[in-house]
Amino acid sequence: MTDLPNVLTAPAAKPNLSVVRIPRAWYIACAAGELRGRPLAVTILGTPLVLFRGTEGRAAALLDRCAHRNVPLSLGKVEGERLQCAYHGWRFDGGGVCRAIPGLCGEAEGRGRRVPAYPVRELDGYVWVWMDPETEPDREPYRLGLDGKPGYATVHRRVVAPGTLHATVENALDVPHTAFLHAGLFRGAGEPNLIEATVRRFPDRVEADYQGEPRPEGLAGRILAPGGGVVRHWDRFILPSISEVEYAIGEDAHILVSAMATPVSDFETVLHAAVCFRLRIPTWLVRAVLTPIALRIFGQDARMLRHQRDTIRRFGGEQYVSTDIDILGGPIWRLLKEAERGELPPADAPPEVLRTVSLRV
Amino acid sequence: MTDLPNVLTAPAAKPNLSVVRIPRAWYIACAAGELRGRPLAVTILGTPLVLFRGTEGRAAALLDRCAHRNVPLSLGKVEGERLQCAYHGWRFDGGGVCRAIPGLCGEAEGRGRRVPAYPVRELDGYVWVWMDPETEPDREPYRLGLDGKPGYATVHRRVVAPGTLHATVENALDVPHTAFLHAGLFRGAGEPNLIEATVRRFPDRVEADYQGEPRPEGLAGRILAPGGGVVRHWDRFILPSISEVEYAIGEDAHILVSAMATPVSDFETVLHAAVCFRLRIPTWLVRAVLTPIALRIFGQDARMLRHQRDTIRRFGGEQYVSTDIDILGGPIWRLLKEAERGELPPADAPPEVLRTVSLRV
Amino acid sequence: MTDLPNVLTAPAAKPNLSVVRIPRAWYIACAAGELRGRPLAVTILGTPLVLFRGTEGRAAALLDRCAHRNVPLSLGKVEGERLQCAYHGWRFDGGGVCRAIPGLCGEAEGRGRRVPAYPVRELDGYVWVWMDPETEPDREPYRLGLDGKPGYATVHRRVVAPGTLHATVENALDVPHTAFLHAGLFRGAGEPNLIEATVRRFPDRVEADYQGEPRPEGLAGRILAPGGGVVRHWDRFILPSISEVEYAIGEDAHILVSAMATPVSDFETVLHAAVCFRLRIPTWLVRAVLTPIALRIFGQDARMLRHQRDTIRRFGGEQYVSTDIDILGGPIWRLLKEAERGELPPADAPPEVLRTVSLRV
Repeated sequence: MTDLPNVLTAPAAKPNLSVVRIPRAWYIACAAGELRGRPLAVTILGTPLVLFRGTEGRAAALLDRCAHRNVPLSLGKVEGERLQCAYHGWRFDGGGVCRAIPGLCGEAEGRGRRVPAYPVRELDGYVWVWMDPETEPDREPYRLGLDGKPGYATVHRRVVAPGTLHATVENALDVPHTAFLHAGLFRGAGEPNLIEATVRRFPDRVEADYQGEPRPEGLAGRILAPGGGVVRHWDRFILPSISEVEYAIGEDAHILVSAMATPVSDFETVLHAAVCFRLRIPTWLVRAVLTPIALRIFGQDARMLRHQRDTIRRFGGEQYVSTDIDILGGPIWRLLKEAERGELPPADAPPEVLRTVSLRV
Repeated sequence: MTDLPNVLTAPAAKPNLSVVRIPRAWYIACAAGELRGRPLAVTILGTPLVLFRGTEGRAAALLDRCAHRNVPLSLGKVEGERLQCAYHGWRFDGGGVCRAIPGLCGEAEGRGRRVPAYPVRELDGYVWVWMDPETEPDREPYRLGLDGKPGYATVHRRVVAPGTLHATVENALDVPHTAFLHAGLFRGAGEPNLIEATVRRFPDRVEADYQGEPRPEGLAGRILAPGGGVVRHWDRFILPSISEVEYAIGEDAHILVSAMATPVSDFETVLHAAVCFRLRIPTWLVRAVLTPIALRIFGQDARMLRHQRDTIRRFGGEQYVSTDIDILGGPIWRLLKEAERGELPPADAPPEVLRTVSLRV
Repeated sequence: MTDLPNVLTAPAAKPNLSVVRIPRAWYIACAAGELRGRPLAVTILGTPLVLFRGTEGRAAALLDRCAHRNVPLSLGKVEGERLQCAYHGWRFDGGGVCRAIPGLCGEAEGRGRRVPAYPVRELDGYVWVWMDPETEPDREPYRLGLDGKPGYATVHRRVVAPGTLHATVENALDVPHTAFLHAGLFRGAGEPNLIEATVRRFPDRVEADYQGEPRPEGLAGRILAPGGGVVRHWDRFILPSISEVEYAIGEDAHILVSAMATPVSDFETVLHAAVCFRLRIPTWLVRAVLTPIALRIFGQDARMLRHQRDTIRRFGGEQYVSTDIDILGGPIWRLLKEAERGELPPADAPPEVLRTVSLRV
């Protein structure tokens, strides 16, 4: 009643809003090491959760709201295998069942006194949560395929992307901006080359397979593969929120960046990145040199995502135009919408080539 | 248009929102001593008021908005018996009538130039306001029955509770949380005892009468009644917003805590607390020892109320479950709703025993 | 979904909301000197614009949103005659046409890739923007008629008024409050005099012509015309957002204050003030003495406007009452509404005397 909606005198084609919400899916709630003796408040898909780990070590996730008087359970503390509310001391087990009510003469348990509990998996150093407390998971979380393999090392990082899930994932897998926004850090240092990408759709993913790409001439490229060699490069989006960038350069260099996105809310996304690599240069050197470059690159991306999000919200939605070289944004959006509507093809459906694209990078 | 409403994937039973608005009632606007030569801005039930006291000492309350150009009158100053707007200098008397307009050649008065005026009473050191400017009060404000009686002393305090009126009053009269949240300060220091409460409904109030209660073993209890003795204890809610906790312990100790709530807005409540007591220990000692304990207890409560309120707003309402030992929350809610709808029983209706409850504290 | 609307128990006559939006009009975006080598973000009528000046010096104004991925173009930089987006490097010319897309093998241009462009004029040291990108301007911006004339000097100032366009303009042209709010600075120092104003409506403006006014006895008046003399005084509002206050005192003193308002959003207005004057005292002295007085006067006005706006928003609109001496507020409002609806009289319609008013100042 206070503010009128803005009149934006720009030509007012009806905007889209690239927000999806896919609760029947696994998302990372936290790194396993973050969850110790104290309850941890985490928001996923706008839903406040409390995670806790009983004295036997099992992680659990409940809705972060006591059934009694709606105080967040994350204000409380862990007592044995139970989480105790800070206000009246009600105790809940990992399944959300109320096991004790101080002062009450009768039974503590009771259907109405339950708190919704979310399925949890602990894998590859992450705590994953299935965001629908009403269904049993019909699949398992994404795995880091190269983590722990002989010759491979893994680096983990958590960053916050101020954008929708779709905007964040499109950015993570977008090639053209790397030659411009990150010029000199990754691509964009030498003369542009004409390369070709084949885009393939699988039931739960989409992949761009790049041919004719030289070793990236930016700083990162020269460090990763000082000897050069034939480059193979794939970018993948895997439902509901995983992006993979994989490079194989010559015989020695293999690197797979998995960015596992957790939609905190419609307009904020957390990325848990795991970089698995086998390189000729020592692991400590890779960490020391590449981590600041990677964080600088992400800082530049985060600035764009934040301004993009603020503009989208200000205009009440997006009005994008795309070209041929916006390779994965469109297919990712269609996968997300199919998943949201529950209309994905069967898991054994054959892959399909969507198109091939030329671009100069 | 910017944010989508949150999808909270918790089972979505329709929530309640325990907000009531009862304008035909008296609320404390301020302590009498706060209102001196300058106008005072106060918000009650979301309505901005300006209080002022003319040179003859009479307090008045107007809507805090000049009839002319809608500037807050509280920016102005008191001139004799009138309040003068800071913008164009219009002057209003305590009844809201415009008495002077600088520069105007004609008459200042005029029906359309009035500002709504609210009935005011000054009693027991408080300025009370009747929050409906359209009706005459049909009753007088709540009085402090023990204030000024021989042998009694009174301590006053004002605190801000970040919660709805209902949540704040339920908290003030809730026994079980005192043994848990405030453990050691009031109750919860020794072994729990089985006690019994009889709940009685009167036309404008509800009372819990406790039997079999030992002296509270916490710090406060041992100070209040070092000699012990038979304990009598009543908790009362009196419409529209008063809670009383009364203890009589043995021959010597008598204490009545009146918390008079003013709903600032739907989700913020101010409590004016008056503690009237007759104890064996000297008044200065009671003040010196009990004030910090009372403020610590209230600080713990305020933290719970704030988180409870934030959770309720985040979920768009409450989803409470109650047990037998949530003694007064339900009856208070029903009284508030009856008062809001104007459906209270006649003042001479007989009291009614609602139920008796056992609890361990 | 979180807060209930406030119940304001004041008598609830339906409030008005004096907000107008007139996009087919010129507004000042910035001073010419503010626009140099870097793009400049400006908001007018709630619409984010980016202004830039190519290397040939021509100013241009585009919607501040890249057609590609909706990042603000004001994050980018000027390359020759083009503005380059910071995210993927798309380049737009001053007409909003996309001229280059890094990485793309095909044509850059394309209808869908245009960004809305707004007509621009650079006049009297200001950059003016026509706020409808869909139409050609059917008139030219307001001009400073006395700027640069022999014997005249001009002082420029930019201030932010926290109020609607209407409230800001009414304040700028309101006489009675000057004797009260600014008492001693401008008017209000001596005994009030009875003066008379004739109000005339022209097709695109309204004017109050004051007769019988003595020299203002406040500090500013005594500085402007130390010798006194016959006073002529006109206050004018010129569509869409210009206010003029003109004084001619005796033979020597002539001063014209033009306050050119830019509605940033519904509740915030920027004023570009230009004071053109011919006085007996030296220009440097006028600046040195009058600037702090003028800023003090504006600071007092801004405080009133901010509180007025906050009260209006809190109550969901205005409930004004006006008297005879609120001379121009009503006629200005009617002009603004006519302009918003596109119902102005023809430019050659004869002027009309609306009324004459007596007031004491």
